Amino acid sequence: MSGTNGPGGTNLDPWYGQYAERTSGLAASEVRALFAVASRPEVVSLAGGMPYVTALPKDLIKASFERVLSTRGDVALQYGSGQGSPALRERILEVMAEEGIRASADDVVTTTGSQQAIDLVAKLFLDPGDVVLAEAPSYVGAIGVFRSYQARTVHVATDANGLVPEALREAIRAERSAGRTIKFLYTVPDFHNPAGVTLAAERRPEIVDICREAGVLIVEDNPYGLLWFENPPPPPLRTLNPEGVVYLGSFSKTLAPGFRVGWALAPHAVREKLVLAAESAILSPSAFSQLVVTEYLSTADWRGQIAIFRGVYQERRDAMLTGLGEHLPELSWTVPNGGFYVWVSLPPELDAKQMLPRAVSELVAYTPGTAFFADGSGADHLRLSFCHPTPDNIRLGIRRLAGVIGGELDLLSTFSGTGPLHAPRHDRRFSSPPPDIG
Amino acid sequence: MSGTNGPGGTNLDPWYGQYAERTSGLAASEVRALFAVASRPEVVSLAGGMPYVTALPKDLIKASFERVLSTRGDVALQYGSGQGSPALRERILEVMAEEGIRASADDVVTTTGSQQAIDLVAKLFLDPGDVVLAEAPSYVGAIGVFRSYQARTVHVATDANGLVPEALREAIRAERSAGRTIKFLYTVPDFHNPAGVTLAAERRPEIVDICREAGVLIVEDNPYGLLWFENPPPPPLRTLNPEGVVYLGSFSKTLAPGFRVGWALAPHAVREKLVLAAESAILSPSAFSQLVVTEYLSTADWRGQIAIFRGVYQERRDAMLTGLGEHLPELSWTVPNGGFYVWVSLPPELDAKQMLPRAVSELVAYTPGTAFFADGSGADHLRLSFCHPTPDNIRLGIRRLAGVIGGELDLLSTFSGTGPLHAPRHDRRFSSPPPDIG
Repeated sequence: MSGTNGPGGTNLDPWYGQYAERTSGLAASEVRALFAVASRPEVVSLAGGMPYVTALPKDLIKASFERVLSTRGDVALQYGSGQGSPALRERILEVMAEEGIRASADDVVTTTGSQQAIDLVAKLFLDPGDVVLAEAPSYVGAIGVFRSYQARTVHVATDANGLVPEALREAIRAERSAGRTIKFLYTVPDFHNPAGVTLAAERRPEIVDICREAGVLIVEDNPYGLLWFENPPPPPLRTLNPEGVVYLGSFSKTLAPGFRVGWALAPHAVREKLVLAAESAILSPSAFSQLVVTEYLSTADWRGQIAIFRGVYQERRDAMLTGLGEHLPELSWTVPNGGFYVWVSLPPELDAKQMLPRAVSELVAYTPGTAFFADGSGADHLRLSFCHPTPDNIRLGIRRLAGVIGGELDLLSTFSGTGPLHAPRHDRRFSSPPPDIG
Repeated sequence: MSGTNGPGGTNLDPWYGQYAERTSGLAASEVRALFAVASRPEVVSLAGGMPYVTALPKDLIKASFERVLSTRGDVALQYGSGQGSPALRERILEVMAEEGIRASADDVVTTTGSQQAIDLVAKLFLDPGDVVLAEAPSYVGAIGVFRSYQARTVHVATDANGLVPEALREAIRAERSAGRTIKFLYTVPDFHNPAGVTLAAERRPEIVDICREAGVLIVEDNPYGLLWFENPPPPPLRTLNPEGVVYLGSFSKTLAPGFRVGWALAPHAVREKLVLAAESAILSPSAFSQLVVTEYLSTADWRGQIAIFRGVYQERRDAMLTGLGEHLPELSWTVPNGGFYVWVSLPPELDAKQMLPRAVSELVAYTPGTAFFADGSGADHLRLSFCHPTPDNIRLGIRRLAGVIGGELDLLSTFSGTGPLHAPRHDRRFSSPPPDIG
């Protein structure tokens, strides 16, 4: 609109000039309009992070719901505790025990999805100008939260084995030398979004020790940890230093996002403040959602259901890696052993954001790498999600994507005189696929 | 605990000193521990604001749920739009039309209860040091939100007809003379929480004009508007100036709080920012809750159900006013024509907060007036809720309360030598009950 007048509003906005300073960090995603187009059924979307809830038997949910309503209807319909349902918090301990975490239900806060947990932790810790350390790349939704509290996300180099300890040490040193205040490290150690990599077992104690020595809190976001393929990931960072880690979990990927139930497990004093912040934000999380999830966890074979999800996603991961190997062998990408995402490196002359409109017109969508950096970098990467489309559609989508990339390179070579495709290029930061899959 | 070391944490907290400045405004309610005791079944609680969900037929909810799961299960279990379900936003227009509001569904954002709407509006507008104008007294949950953004709540005098226009004019003048920035007026015009009063029809255009002329946004919080007794309240402020009002609504009182579904209706440019803030906070509200509420509104006689709630609460309001007139005729109180609350003035020598432990030991609970002021005043008032206990329990609770107040006054007279009870005192700010009820 021609009336745009800065990030705080437009001159068509009667309240322009009244907004808080932090709203300058609230910007609509540049690719939002495109994603509206990409949701058309004829487009193969490799862009979203929507789990495949179709694999969840609806009768399990229905049975849980009916028991809740017949036995605890008045509780389900009422306000609840700001900290979340005690019965659900007990069940959450069982879920975390699958990953090796031992904790007290008193240190758990249930939240409206783990996104709210990120928001509440940020609200508790971040003053304007503070620094959050995070992987390069990092989860787009977390970067947005940190920006909304006027904090600065500083990316730390990441390779096929996750966060690089030496780079973390250096980032802490550099930020402090520059007089800046680091509030926490935000990390997704398992099946990273968007990078698809997992922090190696041998790096985990080193990362924890670096943070402990430097007095830097770790916020460990682990929505995908139980969705492993070949082998489970190493134990969470939280197991190595319970007092130094706020651990975030979610039922959005292991059950369904529609309930909006996530949680934070925090050192006790932090947990107390999280509850106060949560009460201020929403009074209490949905009792209705929490009781249905509790009933599901109490009566259904939720471990078996997670195993079903693992199989679904592993098949899709394989379809994606096979498709990439067949149709885009000149590129490199990460090989996730769980989760939802593959991170693809483009030839440096391509720009994933500029290429997206053409991809959508060719009926395939992805997320440009720029979404995952606070500083606008990442145009030479894109994130592909294998969670929602069927394996056939994933293959179709990759074929279309190969056509788009090939076309872009042809176009560039027409104008620059270089060859149409580049020799295979290996991204030093990320692994290329092993021969048996790629 | 002896280790308390200031509002930011304790010296038992390894992260003490790391919290954001705004956490100094995050304090646990002083009466929280008492309310845990007050939730014992033998205590008559006139303290909470829990609606009487037992009056809601569970089969209506069950039928809505089953239809959602059988026809739109994958949508209900999935992530949804950050702005909220379009079908629900259309239904919300019908609910608001009951109050005379005409609007576009595009200007509605559904939220995790209207508490989240308050939080998001505060996040959008409030910089540290900004001023929010609000009734004296005001909703405790809103005061807490404003504090959490380091804003200052300035109370404006309120009488039996609601906010006093002249006092609003004077507050705007005084705050601006002092060089402070007023960001909005937060007001609950209908069946005020905690004051129980309703902004008179003739004052509404005056309040709107004062704010329009002064360039002050109005945040109109209206969770109780449809729960009127004798007559509906005058039309909302939003009908008088759509561009100058952010209107907040909720299903917590007209349906059930357990779904955590509320909404904001905002001027278009504000609405755009609210959606961005909501996405940052929770990605999207619960699709599951939203679809069940939509189905309920589409198929159940929700207007008839609200009429049932009106009857339930009116009977309870009558029981409370009758009890007050019989057992505490020397006090004065407001007479609500809807909603959940009666605001009681105590003799000035009593302190509602100091008296609460004794009341709880006598098996009755209330909320001290101090909860509803940002500045610690209000000790000479208490809020009584008639929403949740049965009429018999309300009468029992009032009898117990009269015993507590009488005992406190006897005790004071023993030490001061004055009479045991004071002559009836009329609170100039609030109406005493009319003869036919009180």
